[in-house]
Amino acid sequence: MAELQGNVLVGQSGGPTSVINASVAGIVAEALNHECIEEIYGGLNGVLGILQEDLIDLASESQQQIRALRHTPGAALGTCRYKLKKQQDFERVLEVFKAHNIRYFFYIGGNDSQDTADKISKLAQEQNYELRVIGVPKTIDNDLPVTDHCPGYGSAVKYLATTVREIACDNEAMGQGDLVSIVEAMGRSAGWIAAGAALAKRKDHPHDPPHIILLPEVAFNQEKVLEEVRRVLKREKYCLIVVAEGLVDADGNYLAADASTDAFGHARLGGAGDALGEIIEAGIPGVKVRVARPGLIQRSAAHLASKADSDEAFLAGQAAVRAAINGETDKMVTLLRGESDHYTCETGLAPLGEIANGIKKLPLDWINEDGVSMNFQFLRYVQPLIQGENTLPYDNGVPVFARLEKHRADKTLPAYEV
Amino acid sequence: MAELQGNVLVGQSGGPTSVINASVAGIVAEALNHECIEEIYGGLNGVLGILQEDLIDLASESQQQIRALRHTPGAALGTCRYKLKKQQDFERVLEVFKAHNIRYFFYIGGNDSQDTADKISKLAQEQNYELRVIGVPKTIDNDLPVTDHCPGYGSAVKYLATTVREIACDNEAMGQGDLVSIVEAMGRSAGWIAAGAALAKRKDHPHDPPHIILLPEVAFNQEKVLEEVRRVLKREKYCLIVVAEGLVDADGNYLAADASTDAFGHARLGGAGDALGEIIEAGIPGVKVRVARPGLIQRSAAHLASKADSDEAFLAGQAAVRAAINGETDKMVTLLRGESDHYTCETGLAPLGEIANGIKKLPLDWINEDGVSMNFQFLRYVQPLIQGENTLPYDNGVPVFARLEKHRADKTLPAYEV
Repeated sequence: MAELQGNVLVGQSGGPTSVINASVAGIVAEALNHECIEEIYGGLNGVLGILQEDLIDLASESQQQIRALRHTPGAALGTCRYKLKKQQDFERVLEVFKAHNIRYFFYIGGNDSQDTADKISKLAQEQNYELRVIGVPKTIDNDLPVTDHCPGYGSAVKYLATTVREIACDNEAMGQGDLVSIVEAMGRSAGWIAAGAALAKRKDHPHDPPHIILLPEVAFNQEKVLEEVRRVLKREKYCLIVVAEGLVDADGNYLAADASTDAFGHARLGGAGDALGEIIEAGIPGVKVRVARPGLIQRSAAHLASKADSDEAFLAGQAAVRAAINGETDKMVTLLRGESDHYTCETGLAPLGEIANGIKKLPLDWINEDGVSMNFQFLRYVQPLIQGENTLPYDNGVPVFARLEKHRADKTLPAYEV
Repeated sequence: MAELQGNVLVGQSGGPTSVINASVAGIVAEALNHECIEEIYGGLNGVLGILQEDLIDLASESQQQIRALRHTPGAALGTCRYKLKKQQDFERVLEVFKAHNIRYFFYIGGNDSQDTADKISKLAQEQNYELRVIGVPKTIDNDLPVTDHCPGYGSAVKYLATTVREIACDNEAMGQGDLVSIVEAMGRSAGWIAAGAALAKRKDHPHDPPHIILLPEVAFNQEKVLEEVRRVLKREKYCLIVVAEGLVDADGNYLAADASTDAFGHARLGGAGDALGEIIEAGIPGVKVRVARPGLIQRSAAHLASKADSDEAFLAGQAAVRAAINGETDKMVTLLRGESDHYTCETGLAPLGEIANGIKKLPLDWINEDGVSMNFQFLRYVQPLIQGENTLPYDNGVPVFARLEKHRADKTLPAYEV
């Protein structure tokens, strides 16, 4: 394999996570080790900034700031939900790549982003422009296929499980048989995150909170849920429910939805917790309902990130660079779990096309027969993903996060209308 | 002062905080030092359990568990919002005290709880039953008079400021001039908590998020707020708003309220964030609004408690015992700030009656003229209260909290109908 001399471009796309910046740090740290790599650019706001030739010089950032990316939430390069549609858009991306001698393109994102990366890669091949494209997985939704799990998921789950355990202390103190506490978890079409709240239970304490987990995978049955709530109230004096925002009834209708959709045509959700609360207040007279809707906090609580997750996000960034240097292209880095009982994680590669068009569902046989709790198979899967705590720097009582200088690379092309 | 020989009873009342259990730990730790104290009882669920003679033996708990109370959220003894009304209730409380030779009563709570403690103390004096009653302040609302601040407040504010700084990273990455992010803060009638979100700003960076803080102290003016949001969106590409749940308009109507009230007649609120979001979506076409409503998480996020707050809560518990041993009664422990620039905190005492009937308002001259940000006087006040982080034990990725054995003391009285 001949060495490919040229520049690197990194982009971030889709909703941020607590650890997506750790992947940028991994890419930069690894890229610095390879002499065939000259410049390391970051594309601002994903493909949106690339189209507009908004590139920054990542090599000129201080090492401190790059290191701080490992515990900084959000997406330090900015992100977007813009979907490349027109052929013209793809051609513009390649023009920008050519203008800046980009030979290595790393795109950190979920399904839609890997699809975008795949199409850019294919166009470069058509045009005989030598380009190595490696995707880095990212999504709290944990729904990418092939990879065992996705960076970002473990931290979201660690936040949720911790929060449930903490709120449960509060609820237990207040509960006198009439308190229902609802925590609304993110999760558009799958219950991966809500299911993770099961980690709040101590081992061998199935009656620990969360008492009821409502997943999009199990059609909402009002009578059954009310019955379950009554049973828990009697036993525990309070009832803590975790509900996925994408909960649906037997006809597939969202418990709560507004009509709007995002740029990719996904329904924008929110309000399943409130809707459920109203149902419970109406169905069980005298009950008091408290609803917490942490929303974006779930994907930005870096102060409580899983160290395992954050380290794997960094590792995935490093692996992407090494794969590209070794001549790989049109692939996404995957996380592979070892076979032994003791959890280990290595990286692998999978074709972008396979990622872009697939989706990983929460296995139905990981849900207990009651439909509202998770079994040991799920717990065995998810437990290792939340291990360990990051040590963050605090200044005056609040965590300090990275702030990139964002030195702009000179633009060399005419402006482009997005 | 003759030594008063007898037993201790500790109770917790009202909404829990992240550090209310640290005060119990302080009381137990200090009580063990004094030979005149024989048994240390905990009353379950505040006065409700005391009425029903539901007492537990705190001295028989392991030292590990008592120590773990220092980082455990909720109220380990249970709490209540039950208000003693009838004379008969107060007399029953004294009967229970007499039956168990309770000579030291420590009640940890807010205004209503201190009022209850005051009345019990007065009745004991009328009946010539020697009893020392010392209140320990507790409320995330920070609205108790006389004391400089209240245990629980600092941790709520540290959680909120951290969350705002983290969500801001996410919002900044996503913002393209059309993103409004709203975080709804607790705060029934005062903006103490919402105001504390100002600590998310770096020193000398007034444009840092939160860009707009909406307090109950400043009547909501729709046009003015929309104008401010437009200005911030233009400048920052996103706008992060912290809104207190008790926000009111010029006529004193809550922005969002439901009709129900709690046992003390306070309106139960929630939904100011959603209501504000609707106003902004209607007023600024094309804008996307995301609302986070952490709810009870704000008062239970012990993993992010302020060490200063948690230490002071412990200290207040210790001080209560020492004051009672020294013959004080019918007082509440207060926190006194030293005069020097370097923050110091000592405890003092104030008559319960003064606490019960007073309320500490957020000084209006701590709010900037713009009505949506806080000035240096507030920051100087609040900054010391969020300093330091507790070190929590984690097991399998989630924090481990205290679990009391709760060995019941024998009941000696006939049952009492509450």
